[in-house]
Amino acid sequence: MAKDIHPPRGMRDFLPAEKAQRDAVLARIVAGYTRHGFTAIETPVAEDISRLTSGMGGDNEKLAFRIQKRALTADQLRAAADAMDATSLADLGLRFDLTVPLARFYSSHAAELPSVFRSIQAAPVWRAERPQKGRYRQFVQCDIDVIGEPSALAEVELLAASADTFAALGIDGVEFRVNDRRILEGLLAGFGFDASSWPGVLISVDKLDKIGIDGVVAELESAGIHSADSLARLREFLAAVESAGLRTLTATIVRDLVGPRIVGESAEAGIANLVLIAEAIAQLPTAPRLVFDPTLVRGMGYYTGTIFEAAHPSSSSSVGGGGRYDGMIGRFLGRDVPACGFSIGFERIVDLVAPAASDERGVVLVYDNAVPLDRLIRIKQSFVERGARVRLEKRPKRLGPVLESLGAAGFTHFGFVDVGAQAESIELRSLSE
Amino acid sequence: MAKDIHPPRGMRDFLPAEKAQRDAVLARIVAGYTRHGFTAIETPVAEDISRLTSGMGGDNEKLAFRIQKRALTADQLRAAADAMDATSLADLGLRFDLTVPLARFYSSHAAELPSVFRSIQAAPVWRAERPQKGRYRQFVQCDIDVIGEPSALAEVELLAASADTFAALGIDGVEFRVNDRRILEGLLAGFGFDASSWPGVLISVDKLDKIGIDGVVAELESAGIHSADSLARLREFLAAVESAGLRTLTATIVRDLVGPRIVGESAEAGIANLVLIAEAIAQLPTAPRLVFDPTLVRGMGYYTGTIFEAAHPSSSSSVGGGGRYDGMIGRFLGRDVPACGFSIGFERIVDLVAPAASDERGVVLVYDNAVPLDRLIRIKQSFVERGARVRLEKRPKRLGPVLESLGAAGFTHFGFVDVGAQAESIELRSLSE
Repeated sequence: MAKDIHPPRGMRDFLPAEKAQRDAVLARIVAGYTRHGFTAIETPVAEDISRLTSGMGGDNEKLAFRIQKRALTADQLRAAADAMDATSLADLGLRFDLTVPLARFYSSHAAELPSVFRSIQAAPVWRAERPQKGRYRQFVQCDIDVIGEPSALAEVELLAASADTFAALGIDGVEFRVNDRRILEGLLAGFGFDASSWPGVLISVDKLDKIGIDGVVAELESAGIHSADSLARLREFLAAVESAGLRTLTATIVRDLVGPRIVGESAEAGIANLVLIAEAIAQLPTAPRLVFDPTLVRGMGYYTGTIFEAAHPSSSSSVGGGGRYDGMIGRFLGRDVPACGFSIGFERIVDLVAPAASDERGVVLVYDNAVPLDRLIRIKQSFVERGARVRLEKRPKRLGPVLESLGAAGFTHFGFVDVGAQAESIELRSLSE
Repeated sequence: MAKDIHPPRGMRDFLPAEKAQRDAVLARIVAGYTRHGFTAIETPVAEDISRLTSGMGGDNEKLAFRIQKRALTADQLRAAADAMDATSLADLGLRFDLTVPLARFYSSHAAELPSVFRSIQAAPVWRAERPQKGRYRQFVQCDIDVIGEPSALAEVELLAASADTFAALGIDGVEFRVNDRRILEGLLAGFGFDASSWPGVLISVDKLDKIGIDGVVAELESAGIHSADSLARLREFLAAVESAGLRTLTATIVRDLVGPRIVGESAEAGIANLVLIAEAIAQLPTAPRLVFDPTLVRGMGYYTGTIFEAAHPSSSSSVGGGGRYDGMIGRFLGRDVPACGFSIGFERIVDLVAPAASDERGVVLVYDNAVPLDRLIRIKQSFVERGARVRLEKRPKRLGPVLESLGAAGFTHFGFVDVGAQAESIELRSLSE
């Protein structure tokens, strides 16, 4: 690599082999969801910065790349310097997720869309995070969303379509963990936590995987605002969930684990909804594995009901997730519209997918430098027209390594174009021999 | 549309039908070029701003959207205010074309790429232009480039592949206008223009289509730096080209039109190269139409040899263009690497392409609200598994308009799911009847 010539920090180039794999996996994901009645849309990469930072993106809002206003005056620069704040100098930002842009898109086009709108978005997002292994500043998200469907039909379609899509990618053993924000809140109410403290408590519970039960309780104790009784009851519950293990979602499991502990009608509705989902999914011929995880929180503040997360044995972090966010679109549109989404963790699964076998014929024509240009292009064209992908390759000093790399790039045959060669007389040999 | 809820100025949302058309056309373009031995790559949307504005992007450099540095200090803001210049506050920019990023990509990865690298890039670019009809701030470019091939083989492969790809899209009647920068410079030398004035003269000649011969000459006269003799000879030449009309590129045409007027070995090499291209293209069974346009300039300053532009009767502006830019990669890499590219004007052709007929079965299941969720999802799944794209649709008050729009969205059949329905008993009817 030439000195200092690299893509921006935390962003990646994709060479042909990687690009082919990524595009193929994306296409298969889109095809999988399309079969289930979803349709792809696209929004610009940028949104008004005021919209991106209106409180619906959680911590990601702080990670937005901000685009400078085009004609900044001396006065504007002076004002920003005086305020010691560059915020006023940007008017657009790169999207940090696909959910806020979708809510904006739906609000712009509701009248042109079906009453229940099932969207696919497979597109890059940007976050100015500190780059680290497996975490990038530009990465692809694959979201599906059902907008306008208040019933559990939305969740069930998302789960069935996602399970089919994982299966079509050859990713077996995906487990969907489900919970409901209303159940979580009903539990916290049952434990006696003050409603104003729930968001903070959930942030701690969300760290359960990393810091364990003791860590969660210690963190909440150190906040100094929770009663010892509430913390004890939370601890008892977390221990009960731990000892029960993650069990297949059934009415019995849900009622046993959380039934006696919750308070409130909303939580009861959450339970009823999960039971409905479980019963519907169980009817599918190849039912995806749904497990009930009453400690599942999911980070984003906008979830209002069901939440899910997809786990796979080969990935330490989740390979997908989502949930119901009935309140968000109303923030843009001015009237409430129910919405529920699921996102496949594209960057986490793209390398788990085996490359699709291609039956395409790929021909490498190794040509002698003395072959006249007009003859060479005519020969190439004749192979293209016979239905092959054709690559010209000037005869190198050492042919072996070149053919090997072309074989790895999916070419299947090669032949020599010598001075005086005719297309018909070129003998093709298999590259795999 | 809700008040004030819209994408950023000059940027577009794509609804399902538009998105499907755009994706299908892009896929067909990529498939066309792939058959000719090109492979797709991808770079991040952003590049270091210093690289984007290092003089290789021409006027587009001024149109780059600039991304603010993440942690701006009060001192940095103060310094920008004092200098009345916001430049120092941005470290990245959105790419305004795909050529500068490709040169950077090649410089980063030369060691991993074949000695002659044929790339496809089909991706968005951004320009902060004043939005107007048909001109957007985010739009897609489709570029193919041959890097590392000094001979006319590069040009010939680009032309043959592009002609095939236009044909595969059903866009007939594309005419490729070709010229060579060295011929243009040899002409200006022959007319007695001072070499330092050539870039300015070419800028005026580039406006020929819009302002005519009189306009070009008047603009150059008003510059006050050119001799009357040079201007008279330029005028005579432009008139001769106009009266000759655009003629098929042949050795005779090139020699007749510009042969006697040029000065310099470099221009002679340009003529020889064009003749070589003409002879090779003429050998193709369905030869694309190449015409010689010795007044063709192409805006970008980085072109060093052949330049081309694709015209189509249904579009007033070009539907593609490109050329040889042998000097650019050396600016990044530190050693010269020849390069030549062609770009299809995606936004100009996407609506000229007839939607591909799909043989996919698309089933709309119109369901009664009283059908239990578990039964409904099982019925949907059974149709998905029988190989159809399936959309659930709650029975609306007026079925006709809903079915009509679903037919327009590519669904082919519909059936009713009533309470008690079984998948096997649902009778499908054609949506086109």
